[in-house]
Amino acid sequence: MSQPEIPKQCKAGVVVNEGPDFHVEIQMVDVPEPKDDEVLLKLNATGLCMSDVHFMMNDWAVPPMSTFNTKCAGHEGAGVVVKVGKNVTDWAVGDRGGVKPLWDVCHNCEECWNGRENYCQKGVYTGLVATGTYQQYITSPAKYTSRIPEGVPDEVAGPIMCSASTMHRALIDSGLKPGQWVVFPGGGGGVGIQGVQLAKAMGMRPIVVDSGAPKKDLSMKMGAEEFVDFKEHKDVAARIKEVAGGVGAHGVLVTAYQSYKDSISFIGDRIGGKIMCIALPPAGAVTLGTDPNLFVFKNLSIIGTLVGTMQDTAAALDYARRGLLKSICEVRGMSAMPESIQQLRRGEIAGRIVIDFNKD
Amino acid sequence: MSQPEIPKQCKAGVVVNEGPDFHVEIQMVDVPEPKDDEVLLKLNATGLCMSDVHFMMNDWAVPPMSTFNTKCAGHEGAGVVVKVGKNVTDWAVGDRGGVKPLWDVCHNCEECWNGRENYCQKGVYTGLVATGTYQQYITSPAKYTSRIPEGVPDEVAGPIMCSASTMHRALIDSGLKPGQWVVFPGGGGGVGIQGVQLAKAMGMRPIVVDSGAPKKDLSMKMGAEEFVDFKEHKDVAARIKEVAGGVGAHGVLVTAYQSYKDSISFIGDRIGGKIMCIALPPAGAVTLGTDPNLFVFKNLSIIGTLVGTMQDTAAALDYARRGLLKSICEVRGMSAMPESIQQLRRGEIAGRIVIDFNKD
Amino acid sequence: MSQPEIPKQCKAGVVVNEGPDFHVEIQMVDVPEPKDDEVLLKLNATGLCMSDVHFMMNDWAVPPMSTFNTKCAGHEGAGVVVKVGKNVTDWAVGDRGGVKPLWDVCHNCEECWNGRENYCQKGVYTGLVATGTYQQYITSPAKYTSRIPEGVPDEVAGPIMCSASTMHRALIDSGLKPGQWVVFPGGGGGVGIQGVQLAKAMGMRPIVVDSGAPKKDLSMKMGAEEFVDFKEHKDVAARIKEVAGGVGAHGVLVTAYQSYKDSISFIGDRIGGKIMCIALPPAGAVTLGTDPNLFVFKNLSIIGTLVGTMQDTAAALDYARRGLLKSICEVRGMSAMPESIQQLRRGEIAGRIVIDFNKD
Amino acid sequence: MSQPEIPKQCKAGVVVNEGPDFHVEIQMVDVPEPKDDEVLLKLNATGLCMSDVHFMMNDWAVPPMSTFNTKCAGHEGAGVVVKVGKNVTDWAVGDRGGVKPLWDVCHNCEECWNGRENYCQKGVYTGLVATGTYQQYITSPAKYTSRIPEGVPDEVAGPIMCSASTMHRALIDSGLKPGQWVVFPGGGGGVGIQGVQLAKAMGMRPIVVDSGAPKKDLSMKMGAEEFVDFKEHKDVAARIKEVAGGVGAHGVLVTAYQSYKDSISFIGDRIGGKIMCIALPPAGAVTLGTDPNLFVFKNLSIIGTLVGTMQDTAAALDYARRGLLKSICEVRGMSAMPESIQQLRRGEIAGRIVIDFNKD
Repeated sequence: MSQPEIPKQCKAGVVVNEGPDFHVEIQMVDVPEPKDDEVLLKLNATGLCMSDVHFMMNDWAVPPMSTFNTKCAGHEGAGVVVKVGKNVTDWAVGDRGGVKPLWDVCHNCEECWNGRENYCQKGVYTGLVATGTYQQYITSPAKYTSRIPEGVPDEVAGPIMCSASTMHRALIDSGLKPGQWVVFPGGGGGVGIQGVQLAKAMGMRPIVVDSGAPKKDLSMKMGAEEFVDFKEHKDVAARIKEVAGGVGAHGVLVTAYQSYKDSISFIGDRIGGKIMCIALPPAGAVTLGTDPNLFVFKNLSIIGTLVGTMQDTAAALDYARRGLLKSICEVRGMSAMPESIQQLRRGEIAGRIVIDFNKD
Repeated sequence: MSQPEIPKQCKAGVVVNEGPDFHVEIQMVDVPEPKDDEVLLKLNATGLCMSDVHFMMNDWAVPPMSTFNTKCAGHEGAGVVVKVGKNVTDWAVGDRGGVKPLWDVCHNCEECWNGRENYCQKGVYTGLVATGTYQQYITSPAKYTSRIPEGVPDEVAGPIMCSASTMHRALIDSGLKPGQWVVFPGGGGGVGIQGVQLAKAMGMRPIVVDSGAPKKDLSMKMGAEEFVDFKEHKDVAARIKEVAGGVGAHGVLVTAYQSYKDSISFIGDRIGGKIMCIALPPAGAVTLGTDPNLFVFKNLSIIGTLVGTMQDTAAALDYARRGLLKSICEVRGMSAMPESIQQLRRGEIAGRIVIDFNKD
Repeated sequence: MSQPEIPKQCKAGVVVNEGPDFHVEIQMVDVPEPKDDEVLLKLNATGLCMSDVHFMMNDWAVPPMSTFNTKCAGHEGAGVVVKVGKNVTDWAVGDRGGVKPLWDVCHNCEECWNGRENYCQKGVYTGLVATGTYQQYITSPAKYTSRIPEGVPDEVAGPIMCSASTMHRALIDSGLKPGQWVVFPGGGGGVGIQGVQLAKAMGMRPIVVDSGAPKKDLSMKMGAEEFVDFKEHKDVAARIKEVAGGVGAHGVLVTAYQSYKDSISFIGDRIGGKIMCIALPPAGAVTLGTDPNLFVFKNLSIIGTLVGTMQDTAAALDYARRGLLKSICEVRGMSAMPESIQQLRRGEIAGRIVIDFNKD
Repeated sequence: MSQPEIPKQCKAGVVVNEGPDFHVEIQMVDVPEPKDDEVLLKLNATGLCMSDVHFMMNDWAVPPMSTFNTKCAGHEGAGVVVKVGKNVTDWAVGDRGGVKPLWDVCHNCEECWNGRENYCQKGVYTGLVATGTYQQYITSPAKYTSRIPEGVPDEVAGPIMCSASTMHRALIDSGLKPGQWVVFPGGGGGVGIQGVQLAKAMGMRPIVVDSGAPKKDLSMKMGAEEFVDFKEHKDVAARIKEVAGGVGAHGVLVTAYQSYKDSISFIGDRIGGKIMCIALPPAGAVTLGTDPNLFVFKNLSIIGTLVGTMQDTAAALDYARRGLLKSICEVRGMSAMPESIQQLRRGEIAGRIVIDFNKD
């Protein structure tokens, strides 16, 4: 492939006034130079994720972006390699690549050794410690960039980097098996619906708890076997029990922190049920737990899980390539980014917004 | 073996005045007749377990013993088969057999099918629904009586039926591996010390949190690598972290409900730590849980587990046979039973009391 | 349910002249009386399986049926309970029940304890040691009879007892995961096609190796992603490799002993491939193995597996109930049984024959 | 730590006349310069392994060392970092490090992602593709060098890099559990004895099959529960069966290719036995396999496994640090290297030879 022309500067959604009153401005910023072990990616798409908002507001228990001199949030990027560092042998210009919540890991700790590098304690977070995917040209470590297979468009690949990969990890870590019932509270939303599709593709039986006809339609179309509208059912747990063999769900994947409080009830009388913690509540907002008697008598497990690994991302991308994981994103142009982020922050966005860098 | 003479009546520790002011009286009761699929056991030993007290006080959320017309508590019995029911082919008079917390299971539910019959919802509890091991002659289902191997004395086998088997199950369910650090809060006591020995035999590295020189000596002798005296260490979690590779424990096995509140802290910075719930608190006394952020960022699991299976009991008995699981019981005669139970109830008993039916 | 009338005698396909020249005759035989722990089933359907032929010919390394005074082969029976033994509490007259290759197990050995009762060394084989399902009224141990769920017709349930249950076990034992490629040599036949459907339902990607348009059509309809016609492809392994990501299959499930010799080649360059042995060749006919270098460098496993467990049968029946496991049986009347068995023996039957006891 | 003085040249055991008549000569060779992501190690010890001989003879199905311009074999090196490449942040001069059979892996393939990087198809073999540990100063990728913990001497650490790490992997991959019987044919030798110790430390019950009083003494001292002298026992399998509960071994770890032929017999009547293939026979010398009936009826598995991972090496080093994995090496000076290799080749060496670079 002929060497693409690389501009000196590129468009970026830069955080201004980091903190509670932040906003994002489209600015021109310098295109970085890839280090020896890095590739330079020209992104075509970036998803917008609520975590970005938290990083820009700095309301999570992490140092502010400015500590790391990071101006751009974002961690769901999909694009193409335009330059490779001098030590890079396994990527070529023109290869498609994606950037995930973890920008890099150490490859050399107990977690990395065991395919659990999502827990690498030296992991570098994209859009916080490393420049994020709100910037069109970014560098990425060659060994931790995900390959995007043919047939998966960039606007689909982007959100897979984060939400679908995370859901895949949660499903794997749950130990849930084909034929078992899995509840997705809030599963009609952008993250949950990816879990619904993956669970279906893995032979499980998804139940979505959410509200409204559009979410019901979407959920059923995407593979849910049952939609429990929490506005229609007074006793959601009772309805789940009824659906799930008269016993209860085998697992619950909590992607919205407001659902933690009811999640254990969805297990019903099931022995060995698993509550998977995915959602990150504001610090101190929620306690998840119960009477130890219930843990003991129900063989109940509560298990936390964080983002996805390289393997999870590859697996999710492969499901997308096979058509088993569909995008439900709304694609907007670059100029819509600042306002879209404010809408996201105000909770006005239902599904997932993807910004197309090539569209104005 | 020549047919043993079976008396019409036998000694039994009978509950009197079931409820908060119960006491146990030694009475002569009728020796039962084994049904077609049962064996009749002449017990030589029974352990006394705190659960017995709860059943006799009826302060757990289960129906009282009298509902089932059960007069004798107890579920840690070891003895010898003296008669077999007409359908029984796999037991002979003279075989040694033990009775566990579960007197029988259905053998035909999803839990039973999968070697998780400790969760059989039709399970019959010994000393509550079925006559317990405080009675010298009791019946036991042939297919759910545990064989006691040569070389394991009855006073050792008794407590294995309950506590060691339970600890074996908890260790198996934890998924903890050889070389990993396991904390036993209160591990110097009768139940915990069995876990310490089993963990050691399974290649794990036990840390006991308890207090006093005798418990320290016992713990270290039984295989603990470290004893953290909670009266000497202000910050027990910090000490555990220091011992456990500067990181924290891989697992915590909670056998005393008072330890639930600190148990999560013993994980320290360990990723993937497991809190195993074994202790049954008074209903409503304790909540076990934490901020979901901690579950997520530490890949923390809380897992409940209840008694042991046939397999666990057999495994624990085999460790005992090999000398890797030693008894630390105090053996007392039958006449000491009533007062021993009161002592147990008042929390005055450190280790484990076993009653020898053949001793006065 | 009102007590059904139970005849004194019933129709049965009785083996005559056991050995190489056996034949089956429809005779009237006595209806047995259920023992205390048994139910009496009135079968509506029995599948015919090649193992039946082997038992009647007595060309496997097992004692002849006559040793056990068994006159009827068959181990794929589906019917209804018409009487229960006096100790039976969990079955009622009118309940639907099925009989499997294992008529009973001991419930009390290491295999039974661990949900691996398909390997119980005291297991009693149906149609060899116990009277088989070629007889319309047979007894079955209450605790080892499989419940047939509503919505699964008897002619579908019958073959599930054996072939689908076996394939489910093989898939579980293989450790193969959703998204992985599984080859079914001879998968267009009666046993393999059940594996194809189950693999699909469990999220795997089935490849069938067989020949001819009807088998291709059936395979693709039942969920195969690819059909490799061994008469069209000179190098079947090369074709599989091409389909399976350019690498090779993750697993091969061998249900016809003639396929053992090529099975390892289907793994191609895949690391960690699994060859699952299911087919029973005539003793000494085949050796399955290879150069240890190949085992080592490919992380290759060969794993044997035998029939299915209660859990597998229940799981397969549940897939059938959900419409994910379809029957492809040809149903014939009772009078067709003798000749059908001869056809089976001569290899003239493509799919699966089910005999309807209620049809002449 | 003050910068150590690095010589221009260093001692090395160089292969001369690669092929069937090779020999090794001590020569002075250039000290290499570490690349950006590498460290330079000054080795204090290297083990001598039979694989080295095969690489120098070039009688395995791999290209000759000269293809890669490699002059020094060896892959069991232990030493200290004397210089770090410019991108290296996690190693400092003075840190202790070891080099394994795999000099580097790609960190970015399905095997690497899953902690199975011992199967990385881009893995670079030490002493074949990369300069081996027969040379005192060698470079090593920072992210694939193993840390040697305090308290483990270099002459112990060296052989752990290869043999103990490999045995750890085989034990892990076997799925064998505490309390189970594991046979080590030839376990009195240098590789097997490491497996014996590790199996013991992991709670398993090792049986060594070998011959002679010294090997018996060593085996029993290192944790074997039984030593079966194949010269004394006509029927080794029968003796193993007797020892292993009257049933047979749960697993067999084959480290000498001559033992493949008997290995399956050591399983006896055990259900679910595992034959672990570790030894690499000359191509075509051996076929490992059996009648599929045996696989099916015994639930037998044969599983191949190759070297160890970073995790295995770290685990083995930790067992050594705890005193549970002892060296049984004979340490010789550098001048003894050439002749020691010839002895190894002629099969004259019983245990393990380690060369001390600092000794003449």
